[in-house]
Formats: sequence, structure tokens, C-alpha cells
Amino acid sequence: MSTTFIHGGTVVSSTGAQDLDVLVDGEAIVALLAPGSTALGADLAATADTAIDATGRYVIPGGVDAHTHMEMPFGGTQASDTFETGTRAAAWGGTTTVIDFAIQNPGMRLQDTLATWHEKAAGNCAIDYGFHQIMGGVDAESLRAMGELVSEGVTSFKLFMAYPGVFYSTDGQILRAMQSAAELGAVMMMHAENGIAIDVLVEQALARGDTSPYFHGTSRAWQMEEEATHRAIMLAHLTGAPLYVVHVSAKQALEQIATARGNGQNVFAETCPQYLYLSLEEQLGAPGFDGAKWVCSTPLRPRAEGHQDELWRYIRTGDVTAVATDHCPFCMKDQKDMGVGDFSKIPNGIGSVEHRIDLMFQGVQDGRISLERWVDICSTTPARMFGMYPRKGIISPGADADIVIYDPNGHTSIGVQKTHHMNMDYSAYEGFEIDGHVDTVISRGRIVIDDGAYRGTAGHGAFVRRGLSQNLM
Amino acid sequence: MSTTFIHGGTVVSSTGAQDLDVLVDGEAIVALLAPGSTALGADLAATADTAIDATGRYVIPGGVDAHTHMEMPFGGTQASDTFETGTRAAAWGGTTTVIDFAIQNPGMRLQDTLATWHEKAAGNCAIDYGFHQIMGGVDAESLRAMGELVSEGVTSFKLFMAYPGVFYSTDGQILRAMQSAAELGAVMMMHAENGIAIDVLVEQALARGDTSPYFHGTSRAWQMEEEATHRAIMLAHLTGAPLYVVHVSAKQALEQIATARGNGQNVFAETCPQYLYLSLEEQLGAPGFDGAKWVCSTPLRPRAEGHQDELWRYIRTGDVTAVATDHCPFCMKDQKDMGVGDFSKIPNGIGSVEHRIDLMFQGVQDGRISLERWVDICSTTPARMFGMYPRKGIISPGADADIVIYDPNGHTSIGVQKTHHMNMDYSAYEGFEIDGHVDTVISRGRIVIDDGAYRGTAGHGAFVRRGLSQNLM
Amino acid sequence: MSTTFIHGGTVVSSTGAQDLDVLVDGEAIVALLAPGSTALGADLAATADTAIDATGRYVIPGGVDAHTHMEMPFGGTQASDTFETGTRAAAWGGTTTVIDFAIQNPGMRLQDTLATWHEKAAGNCAIDYGFHQIMGGVDAESLRAMGELVSEGVTSFKLFMAYPGVFYSTDGQILRAMQSAAELGAVMMMHAENGIAIDVLVEQALARGDTSPYFHGTSRAWQMEEEATHRAIMLAHLTGAPLYVVHVSAKQALEQIATARGNGQNVFAETCPQYLYLSLEEQLGAPGFDGAKWVCSTPLRPRAEGHQDELWRYIRTGDVTAVATDHCPFCMKDQKDMGVGDFSKIPNGIGSVEHRIDLMFQGVQDGRISLERWVDICSTTPARMFGMYPRKGIISPGADADIVIYDPNGHTSIGVQKTHHMNMDYSAYEGFEIDGHVDTVISRGRIVIDDGAYRGTAGHGAFVRRGLSQNLM
Amino acid sequence: MSTTFIHGGTVVSSTGAQDLDVLVDGEAIVALLAPGSTALGADLAATADTAIDATGRYVIPGGVDAHTHMEMPFGGTQASDTFETGTRAAAWGGTTTVIDFAIQNPGMRLQDTLATWHEKAAGNCAIDYGFHQIMGGVDAESLRAMGELVSEGVTSFKLFMAYPGVFYSTDGQILRAMQSAAELGAVMMMHAENGIAIDVLVEQALARGDTSPYFHGTSRAWQMEEEATHRAIMLAHLTGAPLYVVHVSAKQALEQIATARGNGQNVFAETCPQYLYLSLEEQLGAPGFDGAKWVCSTPLRPRAEGHQDELWRYIRTGDVTAVATDHCPFCMKDQKDMGVGDFSKIPNGIGSVEHRIDLMFQGVQDGRISLERWVDICSTTPARMFGMYPRKGIISPGADADIVIYDPNGHTSIGVQKTHHMNMDYSAYEGFEIDGHVDTVISRGRIVIDDGAYRGTAGHGAFVRRGLSQNLM
Repeated sequence: MSTTFIHGGTVVSSTGAQDLDVLVDGEAIVALLAPGSTALGADLAATADTAIDATGRYVIPGGVDAHTHMEMPFGGTQASDTFETGTRAAAWGGTTTVIDFAIQNPGMRLQDTLATWHEKAAGNCAIDYGFHQIMGGVDAESLRAMGELVSEGVTSFKLFMAYPGVFYSTDGQILRAMQSAAELGAVMMMHAENGIAIDVLVEQALARGDTSPYFHGTSRAWQMEEEATHRAIMLAHLTGAPLYVVHVSAKQALEQIATARGNGQNVFAETCPQYLYLSLEEQLGAPGFDGAKWVCSTPLRPRAEGHQDELWRYIRTGDVTAVATDHCPFCMKDQKDMGVGDFSKIPNGIGSVEHRIDLMFQGVQDGRISLERWVDICSTTPARMFGMYPRKGIISPGADADIVIYDPNGHTSIGVQKTHHMNMDYSAYEGFEIDGHVDTVISRGRIVIDDGAYRGTAGHGAFVRRGLSQNLM
Repeated sequence: MSTTFIHGGTVVSSTGAQDLDVLVDGEAIVALLAPGSTALGADLAATADTAIDATGRYVIPGGVDAHTHMEMPFGGTQASDTFETGTRAAAWGGTTTVIDFAIQNPGMRLQDTLATWHEKAAGNCAIDYGFHQIMGGVDAESLRAMGELVSEGVTSFKLFMAYPGVFYSTDGQILRAMQSAAELGAVMMMHAENGIAIDVLVEQALARGDTSPYFHGTSRAWQMEEEATHRAIMLAHLTGAPLYVVHVSAKQALEQIATARGNGQNVFAETCPQYLYLSLEEQLGAPGFDGAKWVCSTPLRPRAEGHQDELWRYIRTGDVTAVATDHCPFCMKDQKDMGVGDFSKIPNGIGSVEHRIDLMFQGVQDGRISLERWVDICSTTPARMFGMYPRKGIISPGADADIVIYDPNGHTSIGVQKTHHMNMDYSAYEGFEIDGHVDTVISRGRIVIDDGAYRGTAGHGAFVRRGLSQNLM
Repeated sequence: MSTTFIHGGTVVSSTGAQDLDVLVDGEAIVALLAPGSTALGADLAATADTAIDATGRYVIPGGVDAHTHMEMPFGGTQASDTFETGTRAAAWGGTTTVIDFAIQNPGMRLQDTLATWHEKAAGNCAIDYGFHQIMGGVDAESLRAMGELVSEGVTSFKLFMAYPGVFYSTDGQILRAMQSAAELGAVMMMHAENGIAIDVLVEQALARGDTSPYFHGTSRAWQMEEEATHRAIMLAHLTGAPLYVVHVSAKQALEQIATARGNGQNVFAETCPQYLYLSLEEQLGAPGFDGAKWVCSTPLRPRAEGHQDELWRYIRTGDVTAVATDHCPFCMKDQKDMGVGDFSKIPNGIGSVEHRIDLMFQGVQDGRISLERWVDICSTTPARMFGMYPRKGIISPGADADIVIYDPNGHTSIGVQKTHHMNMDYSAYEGFEIDGHVDTVISRGRIVIDDGAYRGTAGHGAFVRRGLSQNLM
Repeated sequence: MSTTFIHGGTVVSSTGAQDLDVLVDGEAIVALLAPGSTALGADLAATADTAIDATGRYVIPGGVDAHTHMEMPFGGTQASDTFETGTRAAAWGGTTTVIDFAIQNPGMRLQDTLATWHEKAAGNCAIDYGFHQIMGGVDAESLRAMGELVSEGVTSFKLFMAYPGVFYSTDGQILRAMQSAAELGAVMMMHAENGIAIDVLVEQALARGDTSPYFHGTSRAWQMEEEATHRAIMLAHLTGAPLYVVHVSAKQALEQIATARGNGQNVFAETCPQYLYLSLEEQLGAPGFDGAKWVCSTPLRPRAEGHQDELWRYIRTGDVTAVATDHCPFCMKDQKDMGVGDFSKIPNGIGSVEHRIDLMFQGVQDGRISLERWVDICSTTPARMFGMYPRKGIISPGADADIVIYDPNGHTSIGVQKTHHMNMDYSAYEGFEIDGHVDTVISRGRIVIDDGAYRGTAGHGAFVRRGLSQNLM
């Protein structure tokens, strides 16, 4: 096996930053070393197969994006990034592990859907990947299958309180699935919006002639996110299941989660960069049909109501457990434009798997979060939340050598003509300027991004069998 | 310098546990190594000056006890542990750093009092130590002196809302000191009890003939702890000072702190083992004068009101930042017994510097907290809170080699005739049985406790110049 | 018209008690007079057709029971009190107005169901009555019909989040009905339990062999009442509808309501005597099948969890708006006993229309609530809540002469062989002793209860056309 | 005695409005009559000595202003309204009872100060008056005297947490006074601002050159009002004393009170029209020295922070118990102008005893509160709070004939040249236009304001011996 020695850099963890040298051997980190120590004798910078001088730069664990939807079927089309293009874009952005979703529709066997997703991903990924399992048809058989999936390294299950007729589960189905999750120690993930009520609001909006993308946002009222979040919390309380609420965008929903956490309940919040940076007024309310670029659910919220600032606050307080992307890209042409004249037909999703680490580092530069919290929320805690620690999420001997060398003095301009590698014909962050730069990305010991060049290969990325959550109270 | 190689053990950090080997060179850790890796060539178990086989045991950062009072003058006597005996007992219990308090009484110069405490400690300590500065006489000169102390590594200042006529500061003094702390980035520590009101309650209790130790507890009503805590939070909110509330015992006070933290305010809670394990009814209410053993302020709280369980919960949720001991031992004979017939004359204090790591590990064994949280609350976060990280609080290259090898299958019986090394004629935890054992303790590379033998020396311990807190939101 | 003069008594209102004389002329109160005043000349005690000496007794507005179900069809049987027997029992207990429920099942026209209930009641009632409208089949036509009902004096509509397949409304139906209610200014009443989840819990309990009445209580977990209450609050917040949550029994549900009220939302709580006095352990847990007597939904809650005391507290704080009975009696024989071996087949309901005023007065005697609050919660605020004030709910000129003379020094023993007039073969309060007594009851000027004798007639009671709520913030 | 018959009007109470006729005989109301009833025979409009046609107008209980400071000594001057001018102005504005404050300074006997205030008021007042007792020097003797005052009808005692060196009480003094109040059943009133801390902020502001009236507001930070409010609540909780917090202006302080009330604690909030209508930015920040007109403590709060709207909300929810004026007028010339160049020398106070009923009725017209709440908050609940009900605070037989006939279609222009009768050389509400008008004011049966003319006399007003509070939970 070949060795790589990263020296001179500052290793950042959840608890702090230290000047440390890192020795990689094959796919794993094998040693952390105090710079200049002679106790081990060798001049590793000279003897290693590869030496990287990281002086003045951060050496951080590769990003863990716990929420992506590569090539996801949706309304007759599918998300525009394949596992190949999507994971490559992730690598460009410093993410070395994604957790995607196998999707069960009613009537399918869970194991079959998982097998289908394994087929989609196998041999195509630039970086490592895991799967959550979406349960679109909770019944006796799928409940029994949950244990099998856990033993195969799929230890988290997602349900939908939205999308009646598609992925929607009744409260009775949720209750049963949570009972199983509690028994197995698995995490229950929830899309928490009251889809039954929202569908009425959508129908009423369209009937009123409110058909533009802006009304996607207003129809999915915060009360219906807050409500479903609370409902999920109570069902989780009743059953004892750990609950991870995905893509929280309303401050009131986060307040419900924070309250439950304060009571010692295992409830966790995920948010996404779009909810921290973008808004109903500015993006969904863009002229003409342009707002369609930012149609996703839960929706962007009004800046005037202060959701964005509150979400940053909850990241600081620790009540947000992970920032993921919910990467689910659709092109404007031939995809988003299916919803011209009817916002309900716009494919839901924003792509940003490439920009998460940068966007969150901008939060450090802007004084919103600490350096430690950046690493914690983008990598360490997601890895712990979903049972991959310490293989993922930390710079430590024994861990996979998933490493990003990040230059805090570098610069990244986001835009389709600039740094964009996702298979989308627009960027949700066009024109954003980031005070930092992903210089080098190593995935299981292999340099995949090197100073502006992609050196990875489809198929390098391997499936990660995950254990149970390591982040429970 | 000599090297020590600790192999086969499981290193525990705030985020998880890993099987890792640790190489110490001189006073510092210089490498963490994946077990069995051959990338570095050498068989360190063979080549190191000392090799310790830690198989089956935890390798944890030495404990940081952020709150001790060695040889503290109090009411005509002084705490019965000197820096020599107290730090030696700490070492026995797996604590490798204490932060003691230099005490200013009105009229003294801050710098002079700090110098006095430096004299008391220098040359006497078995382990490293730092100082907080108690300000008993906030005035223009002492406010000016705060900056000087910060530059000398004393970056936290403690005020008292209790003890009028002794350490008490008025709200105006607190406000001014907090303004200075905010400007300096220093941490304001607070003994949060409404001493003015409590003194009335004490006087009334004695007048009623309620003179036994039990009434020490009832006189210091929870409302007066909750009140002072809230007051300190509001003064901190107004000034922007980080606030660390010491020895919180009332659940209602912790609820105030948790609320402020949820709002994103830099407020921190310390609690102590006595508030987690002991109670008003059982200990303070012991027959005769026996309750005097547990007279401390804030007091032990009624178990019937559920304080103890709630405090454990707040440790799990992260709203408790540190478990320290408030080690302030007095013997029953000639010290505690000054208060026979008048509880207000009983010296306030409990000694437990030796038992903190064990008592908190019992919380792990009892399923109350996770292994990670044990290390976090006993070592890592206190180190970060008080500006000593990553020198202290973590097993990492570059850190001081303050290491404890802890046997989760060992056993410790607490009691004066058993494991007791503190200079006290009783144990506050007499008869407690711990499902774990401190096997080996290393302080800055030197083995000070080795399989039941003390091998340290007074004077090995050095003063730690601390930086500003690394634990702010 | 004939006149009645009630003199010497103490008139109690929501705000206080005063010694006042009351003159009734025909069906209405026409004057309140300061005792002993000669300004009006006449000696009314001598000149009135009837004079009642109320010295030493309270003169209070007749009780308003806002929640009864006379002869309600349920699972193949029907509530055992007819409008005749039920309203007569109400009169015995000092209640002079009930609001019963017209019930729409899916597919029926609202107007038709109301007509049916008018037929049931007309000519049979001892006291006045109004109707709420249950909507069991929200659709476009029933939504349109709501306005018509409002104009006919039925200004409150009840939905069920429980009982799927029977009365259950989806969240989409609730949303639509609330939008209509908000537009009309009508009150939305809610049975707030998550019936979808509860039905799963019930099925699981029965499958486990937990078939006795006790498990009725444990299956209807407090989390599912709290959840539905919160959900209803959020839907009401979104739509602007005033929300009245019926028969709240879980303290956590009341906390949700209190929070919403603190935010200024028009949310109101009703509770019932059974939730204040009875408990899961004592009643539902009675030996054998006896617990069936107290099977009702929401269920009685564990006393060990403190629900009962908390409910009393919320009455004191004003967060409970009304104490009604949810009178829905079933006999043990041939009715309740349908559920032997399967608690889910026990008809749900408790009868207590006769005892509400007494049971709540016992709360005054026990120091739980004030005299004013007794009248307020039993009569004045219910009348205001449901648009009948000042015709009902107050002793004032212009008001209907619905008057109770209550003796605080009297005594009432509750029991089937004692004071029982309801058509039930058991009493839910058998053996309760009340320190007070309903002496005289006047309904629209007519004495219907007179010193232990019933002097009313079926058909005296008239339908009350109600206006919009007068109790909104 | 002579009779007055008020007919055709709408009587408003806390619970609703009714068309009722009112008969007054001598000083008291003797009958309420249904309009048009012939049961009592006489045509009172013809036979009464005086008949007032109130058609189209509200007949409400005379206002109870629970907080005034007539001719109060302050900083070498005194409030500019004497009992004569101040109570006359009150009458003009529809207030028929004021409760003023007898003031104890340290060293004085309570009884002596009360006697002094009796002398000031006796023979001078246009309307009835009571006294609260300010305790500026809590000691053993004054504590003993509290019982004597209660027996003389002074049943409420006010302490100051502000104004060190003047009225300030320590927490120990507060504790003792509250213990006595709890024992007596008396109400403890509190000026809740942390005066010790505020004095530091004031000193610092002046030292910075921030000397204009605006900085009066910023120095008295909301945190210091919230803090003191919470502290008072906790001391009251500990002692069991009912607590009435005067002149609350910060929304955060009200939130503390609302929380305590939700817990069932007897805590009550008073606010004043100035905090509902005026603001830091607009009034205190007026150009030059003009802001001095609105210097009072607690201060006006920033509208940008939303205090005013929140206070209105808390009136709706019932968490505000009374709106009083804290009438304490000073002229700009020779009084307020003592503080030119030093805001701390500006006499604290705003006069508005004349405008309270009008300003609060404007809240009805603006849709902020209901008609019932207007009467409740201005008259009924203050009367109950301070033990004067039903003599004051209600239109009911037996009550004092304190009656206002208010025209909702009238108009009132506030301003020095317009409706102003207070002895002030400016109006705090200059230019305010009110959609309503006080037409007639009757004090104990005597018409004192009659269609724009003052017909009262100094000395008509009598001292009201108050009982204990009737407003406790």
C-alpha cells in the first residue's frame, strides 16, 4: 500500500483545531503526529510515497452529506444527477460520503428496492455512499423487513407525512414503523409536513389562479411544518424511536425540536444551506417562472419572519444536528418547466451537493458559527448520527482516509460558468462568492480532487454498511 | 526524553471510542497510531522506554476539575486539604488538572492575592493547576487589574451573590465586572444564590430553634438559587459577558440556564457529584449532627422534588457544561463541629476531588450518560471552557501527556478505610461502590499513579497559563 | 304574567357576590334591587305573586352544560337518557340549559340532521336547550350549509380527530371546515385525539390480550391527545377559526392550549368533572368489568401523573373556559356489558348532567376554586362562549329567569339509591358526599325544582337560538 | 335622599353589555331594571328627582385609577397636581376613584405617614380615594405596623427595587415585608427595576456625555426590569405573598408575569397608557429637551422592539390586571427643566389621570380590546384587586353610584388648549384624537361632570377603607 503524508496543516475536529501531521497508509489514516516530533524517527515528508504540504490550511474530515437523491424518479422524470455525476460533484465540493435513499413505493418489497438502488450506485460513485430506506408502503411485510435491512447496514428509515398518494404514511403506519425502529434501535427519519392539509391549500391556490412558483412557498404554510414536526415528536415519544426530522426550514418547527431535545428526547434536526441563505421573497418570488429553480419542500421561508437567522442560531446552540443538502437537482429545461402555469407540477428539489462545505464555511467567515461547529455539523455529527463513526467524520488513526485540505484564504465563485460540476442547467447559488476553497480531496486514501483537477474514478466509491446511531442521548 | 507507549486500549473522546495506541515522548503525546499499522515501521511496544498494555481498558484524557479550594481560609479555619494533599488525592482519582481559586477580599489588590495563591501552590502540587480569580471587592482598581490577570493566564473571574459581608458583590459591582469581562473576553463565574434574602431565612431559622444541619438546606431555598441564576443571566445578557454558574443544584436554576442557552446566550452550568447522588433528606437530614458532613452551598436538594434526576438529564442534553467537585474539605473534628447548635457556623464544603471520575463513570454503568459524555463532561469541555484545550482535555498529539487508564471491569470501594487519600476524617461517599477503577494516571508524561501506588512528587505539577474560553457559541 | 321575588339571598356572578333581591316577571328577570331600599316604594315580598326567602343561600344563574348527548345513537344502542329524562335530571342538578349535538354522518345533509334532532327534543325538555352540529362528513355541500345553520342559531360545529370510519375528519376536511367557521365567525369544536394512531394501539392491546376496561385508558395515550390538540391549534392558527377543545383530560393537552392562549389565539378548553375527580387507577382499574362504568373518551388519566390537580389549576388560571359533563350515559346492563372481553366494544360515555353544579361547588368547599369561578365556569362563560349571554349565564334584568338557589350549608349524597334521577343503572359518583345542595331551580320564570320536588313539565324547555361567541379575545 | 334615573343606556360590565335602566337613590345604586318592564309600576323617568336619557350611550362603572401620586414630594419639588386639582381632572376623565400612595421614608412611622397623607387629601378631593402605603424603610416596627394599616383600610404595600438611597428596599427587606403581607393577606406592590445596576448605567451614560432625556430610556434597560420582575416573583413565591407589579413597560417583564400566572401564582401586572401608546424613539427621543415630558420610570420602550403591541396582547389575554396612570405630573418649567444637561435630574413622571378612560376606549375603537375588557381593566378588576368590590367597579344595586355615561359617537381632542384640566403646562398626549367622549360623571350619586361642566366640589370625595384583595386565584 502507498502512503501519504499531510504535514504542516491544522487539523480541525468538533472540539478544536490543532497543528498535526497525518499519515495515510492505503485507505486509512494510520497516524496522527505532533509536528516536529522525532520520537518516531523517520522523516515522513521524505519517506512517504506522497507528501502534501498543508501549511496554512485546514485538514478536515471529508464531508458527510446525509441527504441526497441521485437519479431519483419523480413525476415522470428523474433527478438530473446520476450517482456518477452527483458523487463527482460532491467530491469537487469536499464531500466524501453521501447517504442516498432507496425508495419503496406501496406494494414493493423493501429488500427489492434496496437492491435496485445498490444496482444504480454500484460501480458509478466517485466517493463512498450509504443508503437510508424510504418506506412508502408500511405494512406487515415491510415492518418485518426492517430488521434485515439494519443487518445489511441500512439503519435509518424515512417516512413522509407529506405527498398523499405518493410516499405518504398515515399516523398509524408511522406509529407501527416507529415501534419497529425503537425495537431495532434504528433511526426514524421524517419529512414533516402535513401533506393532507397542504394539498387542500395547493388546490385552493391554483383555483384562485395563484399558479406561479411563489405560491408553492405560501401554500406550504409554516404551521403545517410545525404541526407535523410536533406530531412526529409525539409519536416518537410514545414509541421511543429516535427521530431525525429532515430539511427543517421553519423556525417554529425547530423550536418544537429544541423543546423536545431539552426534555431529553432523542429528536434531531437537519437543515440545508438553502434554508440558511435563501428566502421566499428573494428566490421563490423571482420574476416570471424563475422562482421554479428554488421549488423544494419544505419551502424557502420569508426572510421578513426571520427564519434564516433563527436557523443559524439553532446551529450554534446544537439543536441542529446536521446540515445536509437534500440534493435533488432538476434542470429548468424539460424538468422544472413542466410546472409553468401550475406550480404543483414543478419537480421539487434543489441541487447543492457541491457547495455545502463552502457555504457552511462562509458561515464561519461571517462569524455565524465556529470553525469546530463547521466540521461538526458537516461531517462528524452526521457520521455519528448515522452509525459511521469513527470510520467517517474524523481525522483519526483507524478512520478511512477521507480528508479535505481547505484553504481559508482561497476563494470560490459559485456559478454555472464557474465552479459548477453538477448536472444542472442553472445554479441555485449563482453569483455567491465564498471566502475559502476546497483544494484537495482524498477519498479512502486516494486523491480525487487535486488543485482544481478531478482525479477520481467512477466506481472508487464503495457502499458503507452503517451501524446504529452513535448520537443518542 | 523518555518515551511511553500505551497500546491495546480504547481511546475515548467527546465524540467516540476507538482502539488506538498512544505514544508519549517526554511531557507530551506525540502520536496516535492505528493498532497493528506497520507504516511507521518500529515495534513501539518493544522500543519505547515504557510500554503499557491497556488491553480491555479505556485510555482517557486526565480529568480536569475546574473547581477546587485547597487550603482555603474560611471562618477562622481553612480547607483541610493543602495543595499537596489535595492534588495528590486528585491524582489518585484520575484528575490531572485542577483549577483553584485565588481569593481577593475587599481592599486587597487582585495581583497580590494571585501572587499569594501562586506561593501556596508552587512546589507542592502533584498535578497541574490553574487559577480562577475570586473578586471579593470589585472597585475601579480591581476592574483595571482584570486585564493584567488575563495576560498572565488567569482568564476567569468569580463573583458571589451570596455571603454578604464576605465575598458578596452588589448587582452594580457585578455589572461593572461583567462589562470588563465582556471586553476582555474573559469568563464570569458566579455563585448564584440570593445571599441577602438567605441570610434573613437563616436568621429566622436559628431564631425558631431550627439549628441542625438539615436547616442549612431548607434555609437556602431553591427559589433563591433560581432567582440569583436568572439575575446573573440577565446581567450577562445586558453586558455580553460569558457566564459560568458554579455548583448548580436546583433543577429550576438549571432550567433558567437551559432557556438562556436555547436563546443562544453564552451561559454555562457546572454541577457537582454531590448534587447528582446525595440529597437533603438522606444526607443533610442524617441523625444528630452527622448532616454537617454534607453542609455546602448551594445545598443538597430534596430527592422528593426530583432535582437529582433532572440534573442527570441536563448532563445528557448538554446543558450542563462541566461536572466539577467544588472540593472544599473540612474535617468533622475541630472544623465542622464548630457548628454544633448553629448550622450557620458549620464550614461550608464537601471534599470529593478524588472520586469525581469514578462517580461519573458510575453514571455510565448505570445507563445515565454515554461513555463519550463521561469524558466530555469530566475533561474535554472543562478544558475548552477554561482555555486549556488542546493542551488539556484530549488524547491527541501535541497535547500534554495527561492520561488515565481506566478499567471498566475494575472496582472501587469508597470509604475512609478504603480508597480515601484526602485529608478529611470522613468520606462524603462512605460505602459507595463503583463499577470501575482508575488503574494508571500519567501527568505530563510521568506516571503518578501506578496500579495502586502513588509515584508522583509534590512540585511536579505546574501552573497552567490559560487562554480565553474555547467553548463560546 | 306572574311575578316572583327572591329576597335575602346572595347573588353570585363571575366577579363577586352581593346581597341582592331579584324580581322575576313572567319568563325574565326584570329587576335587581338593593335589599331594604325604599326608593321603589312597594314591599315586593308582600306584593309579588311568589316570594322566596333565600336568606343564607346563594342565588346563581342556572347552570349551562355545553356538552350533552341525549339519546345519542352509538354502536347499535343509544345513550340511555332521552331528552326528557336527561333534561329533567339536569334540572334536578341546577342546570337550566344544555347544548346537545345534532349528528351528521357521511352522506347526510346537515340541515336534515339538525331537523332530526329538533324533532327529538321538541316537546320533551324540562329546560332550555341548544344544539351544536357535529360534522361527520365534511364536503362541499355541508360546508355551504354551515352558514344556514348559523343563521338558525346553531353557531358551533364539532369535528372528530378520533373514531376513523365513524365521525373522523381528515386534516384536509378540518382545514376546510375551519376556513368556513372563520369566515362565519362560528366556533369550531374538536374532539382532539389521534384516532388513527389510537386505533392501532387498541388493536395491539386486544391482540396482546389486554381486553379489560383499564386498557381503554392506556391505549388512548396522553401523547395522542396532546398531539391532536396541538394539531387542531395549528390548523386553527392557520385559518383563524376560534377553537374549543372538548373534554380535555391530559395536562399536557391543556398546556398546549394554555400556550396558545398566552399567544393571544382564540383557543378554549373544556373539561369535565370526571377528569377532575376520577382516575385511571381508581376507576378504570376497578376489579373485573366494573371499570366499564368509566369508559369514556378522552379517558380518565393516571392520578400518579397529576393530571387531576393540574386541571384544577388550569381552572383557577382561566385557561379552562368551561366545565361541561359530556353527559352520555349508558347502563351497565345491555349496554356497557357489550364490551365484556373487548374494551373497544364498551359504549363510550359517562353520565353526570345531574351532578356538575354540586361537584364543582365541592371544589369551592375544598378551597380549589373561588365562589365566583364556580359560577363563571358552570354558567357565565359557557353562555358567553356559545352566544347566549346575557339571556343565559347571569342574574340580571333582561336575562331569562334561569335561577338556582343553592344552599352552601346543605348536603347532597350522590348515589343510585339517593339523589339519582338519570336513566342509568349505576352512578359514576356513587358515594360522593357534597357539602352543598340545590334547593330551588327556576327555568324561564317557572319553578321546576322546589325543595326536593320536581314541578317541571316536558316541553317547557325551549330551543335557544344562539348568536356568535361573545368570549373571543 | 334624591333619586336619579338613568334610562335608555347600555350598561357594560366585565362580561357583557345590556340595555338596562339604573336607579340611584342618594349615594348608591338601588336598582337595575329591564327597560320597559312594568312590574314595578312607577314611571321612574317621570318620578325620579333627576332623569338622564342615556340612549345610544354606555353606562359604565366610574373608573378606578389604582396608581396616582398627587402632590408627591420628589427631588425638592412636588407633583404639580394637588389632591384637589388632580382628582378634579380625574373626574373630568371619568375616573371616580383613585388610589394614591402614602409615603414612608426611612425612620418614619408608617402610621404617621399615612396620617400625613390623610391630611393632604381630606376635604380636597372631587372623587373618592384610597391609599396604598409605600414602605421606604422596612424595619421591625414598620413590619408590625402593617397589620394596623390593613385594619384601617390600607391593604396594599409598595416597595421599590429601584431608587437606592431613596425608596429602595434590599431583598432581605422585601422578603420580610412579603412574609408579613402573606400573613395578613395584603397585596405587595412592586416597582420592579434593578436600581442598583441601573444607577451604574446612568452614571456611565452621563460620564459618556449622554445627558439628554433619550438616555433616561436607554439606561433603564429592559433586562433590568425583567430581572427585578422575576426576582420579585421568586420572593413572592417563596413567601406566598400576592404580588402586583406596577407600571410594567417591557414585554419581557410581562412574559415573566404571564409565566408565573400560568403556574397559578398570584402575580398581577399593571400597565399604563403611556406604555401602550408612546415610545422611546418618538417621545423620549424628541428633539432638544422635549423628551423630558415623557421621562418616567419604568421608561417608554422602543417601538421597534414591539413592546407596545405585546402589552396590548397581554391585556387581551388577561395577563394585565389593571391599566392605571401612575399619574405623577411635573411641569416643564421649573420642574422638568431641572434636568437640562443631566437626565437623571429630571423629575420622573407623566400625568394622564384625565385621559385613561378615553385612551383605553380608543383601544376598543381600534379593535385592540373588547368593550367588556375596557370596563374590566379600567374599573372592575382594579376594584376587585384592591378590595373595593362591589362598592366600586360595577353598575349594580348596592354599589356606590359611581357612574359614567360615555358616548361612543362623541369625540375628544386631547391637548393643553383643549380638554386639559390637569395642572401641567404640557400634555403628554397633545394632539391625540379620541373617538369617544365622557359626557356625564356621577360620584356617589352626585353629578360632578355634566355635559362639559364641572359641578363637583372639593371635599365631596371620601376615603375608601379597602378590604383584602378579591382577585386572588
